Amino acid sequence: MQVQDPAEQIALIALAEELAESARKISLQHFRPQGGIGAANKLASGFDPVTEADRAGEVAMRAILQERRPQDGIYGEEHGVKRGTSGLTWVLDPIDGTRGYMSGTPTWGVLIALCEEEADGPGAPLMGVIDQPYIGERFIGGFGRSDMTGPRGAADLRVRAPRALSEATLFTTFPEVGTPAEGAAFARVAAQVQLTRYGMDCYAYALLAAGQIDLVIEAGLFPYDVAAPIAVIEAAGGIVTNWQGGPAHRGGQVLAAANAELHAAALAILAG
Amino acid sequence: MQVQDPAEQIALIALAEELAESARKISLQHFRPQGGIGAANKLASGFDPVTEADRAGEVAMRAILQERRPQDGIYGEEHGVKRGTSGLTWVLDPIDGTRGYMSGTPTWGVLIALCEEEADGPGAPLMGVIDQPYIGERFIGGFGRSDMTGPRGAADLRVRAPRALSEATLFTTFPEVGTPAEGAAFARVAAQVQLTRYGMDCYAYALLAAGQIDLVIEAGLFPYDVAAPIAVIEAAGGIVTNWQGGPAHRGGQVLAAANAELHAAALAILAG
Repeated sequence: MQVQDPAEQIALIALAEELAESARKISLQHFRPQGGIGAANKLASGFDPVTEADRAGEVAMRAILQERRPQDGIYGEEHGVKRGTSGLTWVLDPIDGTRGYMSGTPTWGVLIALCEEEADGPGAPLMGVIDQPYIGERFIGGFGRSDMTGPRGAADLRVRAPRALSEATLFTTFPEVGTPAEGAAFARVAAQVQLTRYGMDCYAYALLAAGQIDLVIEAGLFPYDVAAPIAVIEAAGGIVTNWQGGPAHRGGQVLAAANAELHAAALAILAG
Repeated sequence: MQVQDPAEQIALIALAEELAESARKISLQHFRPQGGIGAANKLASGFDPVTEADRAGEVAMRAILQERRPQDGIYGEEHGVKRGTSGLTWVLDPIDGTRGYMSGTPTWGVLIALCEEEADGPGAPLMGVIDQPYIGERFIGGFGRSDMTGPRGAADLRVRAPRALSEATLFTTFPEVGTPAEGAAFARVAAQVQLTRYGMDCYAYALLAAGQIDLVIEAGLFPYDVAAPIAVIEAAGGIVTNWQGGPAHRGGQVLAAANAELHAAALAILAG
């Protein structure tokens, strides 16, 4: 379902900011304790830290939504899916980048998106927020908004001016990217760009929307990792798809680009 | 030369903060312009961006030092070496992490260290400052100080509590680290730790001093890349050496650790 009423759009953005504010407070309470942070291992295999703040942040956001928009669905990282009746669903990640969070880096974020709700999960993102609590930055996109607030006040978000792939800056979080084949495909793109950087978690998508970098390529993502970045980047004039050029809002392989030409160039290389 | 007088120590830290403030203002003027930043290529081979802000920041700091401490030496990234007569030299990097700076990440920093001056370059760091202008964070170590200021106010700096290498968090900036042999040595350590992260520039050293991570391993560094981090980390209780266990303040291969046990464990693996 689309949201056409301007007053409702404004109210939904205000609600998204309220959710972000709530998750921000909780995440900061547990950020950078002296001695480093503890965490449970969510998966028996491998290292997937989930902190108390992650769980509590989602509980807080779900409580606000239950009171204010009980008709909407919720799709959260920690506490699962609640179906709605409005045709809209909120996609929530209280701490995207938990490894960064646990290491004290200012690159994790609160991700909040409002999406169309489909029978089997979230549909196209309509509006999204990327919030970096420690820096105090918030990036908003959708319903006519494309702007940020941060340490230097407010600013519009607009993707970087077009340039050749050979002059582009590419980001991803982990050098291995995903499977060996996904890592190899990424490496082919990395070999063609001017600069490749790592480790920024969801902050990389915010930098793309803010016109500072040109490409973000990742794999193995979940819907709650990408819904808000898609909304923010598309509102700023960029393009986000999967590695086949199709919709990316269900996660998996994600290619985000500042413009259609760079997107096409990277897509062709990823396809091999 | 050591500085024994407490009043002079306080004055030198105040001066270092004044230098940081000056470089902070200049670097922020050029940070995150709409459309991305331009840069000259400092080296004909490869991509080594140096921005106008980098040059101007060092000019501003040198002017302050020329007026206030004309007897001290200066060792700067951009404008070279000035020999002093006091036995002390200031080691300056107005923007450490220029690639991060150009990409808009909040991981670069202003690095300022006061070192003993030796005949052929900077000697042991006595006091240092790591400043992250965009976030508004400043990490200070030396002359009895070991503390930071940031978005949440002031806090002491102290390294993380000891833990096994298998539970440690390791940072470096570039996955390739340095030469293929250096990259292979790093990979041997990375294979033994719980978590390896990339892309933090000098911010990784600040996180180590702040007790959030356990190890930073890098190669190919210059004296101005390491002097301030050494001072801040040592003041917080950590250890920084080269990969042979010797002094690291001349740069090259650097191993920073939260404690002697982790340092020894990583050193043994790096040595092969």
